[in-house]
Amino acid sequence: MAIAESIQNALASSSMIRKMFEEGIQLKNRHGADKVFDFSLGNPDIEPPAAFHELFVKLAQEDEKGSHGYMPNAGYANVREALAKKVCREQNVKVDGSYIVMASGAAGGLNVVIKTICNPGDEVIVSRPYFMEYKAYTTNHGAKLVEVDSTEDFDLDLSAIGAALNEKTAAIIINSPNNPTGKIYSAASLASLASLLKEHGKKTGRLPYIVSDEPYREIAYTGEVPPILSCYSEAIVVSSYSKSLSLPGERIGFIAVSPEISAKDDLVNGLIYATRILGFVNAPALMQKIVGSLTEARVDVSIYEKRRDAFMDVLNEAGIEYALPQGAFYLFCKAPKRANGESDDKAFVEHLKKHLILGVPGSGFGKQGWLRFAYCVDEKIISASKTAFKEAMKSWQ
Amino acid sequence: MAIAESIQNALASSSMIRKMFEEGIQLKNRHGADKVFDFSLGNPDIEPPAAFHELFVKLAQEDEKGSHGYMPNAGYANVREALAKKVCREQNVKVDGSYIVMASGAAGGLNVVIKTICNPGDEVIVSRPYFMEYKAYTTNHGAKLVEVDSTEDFDLDLSAIGAALNEKTAAIIINSPNNPTGKIYSAASLASLASLLKEHGKKTGRLPYIVSDEPYREIAYTGEVPPILSCYSEAIVVSSYSKSLSLPGERIGFIAVSPEISAKDDLVNGLIYATRILGFVNAPALMQKIVGSLTEARVDVSIYEKRRDAFMDVLNEAGIEYALPQGAFYLFCKAPKRANGESDDKAFVEHLKKHLILGVPGSGFGKQGWLRFAYCVDEKIISASKTAFKEAMKSWQ
Repeated sequence: MAIAESIQNALASSSMIRKMFEEGIQLKNRHGADKVFDFSLGNPDIEPPAAFHELFVKLAQEDEKGSHGYMPNAGYANVREALAKKVCREQNVKVDGSYIVMASGAAGGLNVVIKTICNPGDEVIVSRPYFMEYKAYTTNHGAKLVEVDSTEDFDLDLSAIGAALNEKTAAIIINSPNNPTGKIYSAASLASLASLLKEHGKKTGRLPYIVSDEPYREIAYTGEVPPILSCYSEAIVVSSYSKSLSLPGERIGFIAVSPEISAKDDLVNGLIYATRILGFVNAPALMQKIVGSLTEARVDVSIYEKRRDAFMDVLNEAGIEYALPQGAFYLFCKAPKRANGESDDKAFVEHLKKHLILGVPGSGFGKQGWLRFAYCVDEKIISASKTAFKEAMKSWQ
Repeated sequence: MAIAESIQNALASSSMIRKMFEEGIQLKNRHGADKVFDFSLGNPDIEPPAAFHELFVKLAQEDEKGSHGYMPNAGYANVREALAKKVCREQNVKVDGSYIVMASGAAGGLNVVIKTICNPGDEVIVSRPYFMEYKAYTTNHGAKLVEVDSTEDFDLDLSAIGAALNEKTAAIIINSPNNPTGKIYSAASLASLASLLKEHGKKTGRLPYIVSDEPYREIAYTGEVPPILSCYSEAIVVSSYSKSLSLPGERIGFIAVSPEISAKDDLVNGLIYATRILGFVNAPALMQKIVGSLTEARVDVSIYEKRRDAFMDVLNEAGIEYALPQGAFYLFCKAPKRANGESDDKAFVEHLKKHLILGVPGSGFGKQGWLRFAYCVDEKIISASKTAFKEAMKSWQ
């Protein structure tokens, strides 16, 4: 034993994905990067907005004394206040900065939240398909992820969630707009979930948290994403600027809790403490200042919408079914059936690779028979993939 | 139960330190910030070097396309290569970038290392006094911190370490220059530790790692800090730029492993995977580029040395004993005995507070009867504290 068994096992089981990733690089080396249609990764290619660049240069030129030093673990007080105002607008609540904890991206924020709210052995419910990292974020802190199915149109399945609830349920993670489906949960769906949890809380004395992972909130094509903080008392929002400002490499985000939350002081102090001991210490200083000032800025979402439409056109012509995405930048598609009637997402992803198209099997999101394409790539690449998709469909059997 | 029991308990037990911190703020409000001698916190007040500022402005002005996007979880390849060269010089080894993983500060790096190498129930040895966060960094991942005493002059006590070793020992954490003592472990001490561990490894079949926490490596007053990577095969260095470039708020550091390490691929892949799943994802992009270019820059260490000398002068005149610091920016002092012969660091810290002097009890580092003063504050404040220290000693009984 040179490394932990859990890590050793994870490395062994993730080797398939790594192999695919490496094969993608080999494909680009062999055929040229412009000949490969790489829809595998969710790395936003749109540059941060102009306001970001201006502020970045200004802060660098000023380089104020002490500006790279420690601040409180929760973040700068004025940044927390600025984000509270944004949260008030988006979530239709009244909160001040004391309800906000700055986070090192949503991934950091989710680990901090799970660490704070879960005892070892507790359970966290998630609706399939889901962003697979949630599994590690949960088991990291001794809790267990419980997967339930969504409805046919990828909405929350309340009876499945109800059946999974028990006295060990600490939380349910929701993700809207959703990765990989692009689904936005309606206000009615959220209200039904809230009712279900309240009823469960009355019966068991334990009201589970809703942890709402919202990095795609600002990438929405059908109006505002309905608020969760004003809908349920034990709600916690985790968000980031990885998508809305295209800053995924800088690791900046925040946690916001409902003004009605039962144990506000313990919870917020716990989040701050967990931020410290998990080794984040604080969200990066410079990026805190930037997002505290740029609460109104975002990338041009209409670019993603155009790409979505172009990609749907490609899929329509190729005859591949998909769920209509209301937000985010992913298309979740049905793996077409083989001649024998079977649907195998991994095999179809392998088949697409022969046509230089890269996607991710739905199995990677807990949903066999589907696959995900990320359309945070140039529209030209999307349009140019049409012929390859059609050829791939012709030869699929 | 609204939050995890472990977090609830931690909040309750850490409330004394928070109370002291809040009292410090109250003292400054009441008497004026310049009247309070605050030596409690290790927040470097020296600004980053001029080379940092120049590069910061240059990178902001260029703001290259894609420069805030995702990169591999291990960090930028060219930054890892640049840091490998620095590690080769400092540690007298030959390593390339594949031996380096970029980290979100040393606190992030330590969590990543412990997560990667410890099974639940494993033990990690540390020598008292020590930076108390190590305890949480270890228990976070299901391992147990085992404290042993150091020698009278705060060197590694090999017989104490030998007695603590067993088959569950995954690692020993060392910290040189040390917080809080300022001790630098000599090459001979490190070699003896390495021999002890090798012997233990032969007997038990399990060779423990040495995890060397080195954020203060460049703050040394007595020449170079002896290398650990060339001294022991299973050595891992964790470092940061919080002190050497005064960037603690930006959370940037790195992990380096010995070229002789037994399970290099598993270990490095494990570190990269742990970086991802613990939610760091990657060290902040901009700061990676900065430290990759500034491998030769550091703050002016002679400033800290002058402050150390000024502080020792104050303590000499006041009649307070201390350990001579060879590095870092802390003075670890004996709590003077009361008239009844007792030595109580917490009571003495309370007594000093009446004289508007703030320090941290040694109990906060696992060493009762001592206290720590941080001298990363203006030399004028240090010199001005002399009268207060002398008054405090007169009235201590």
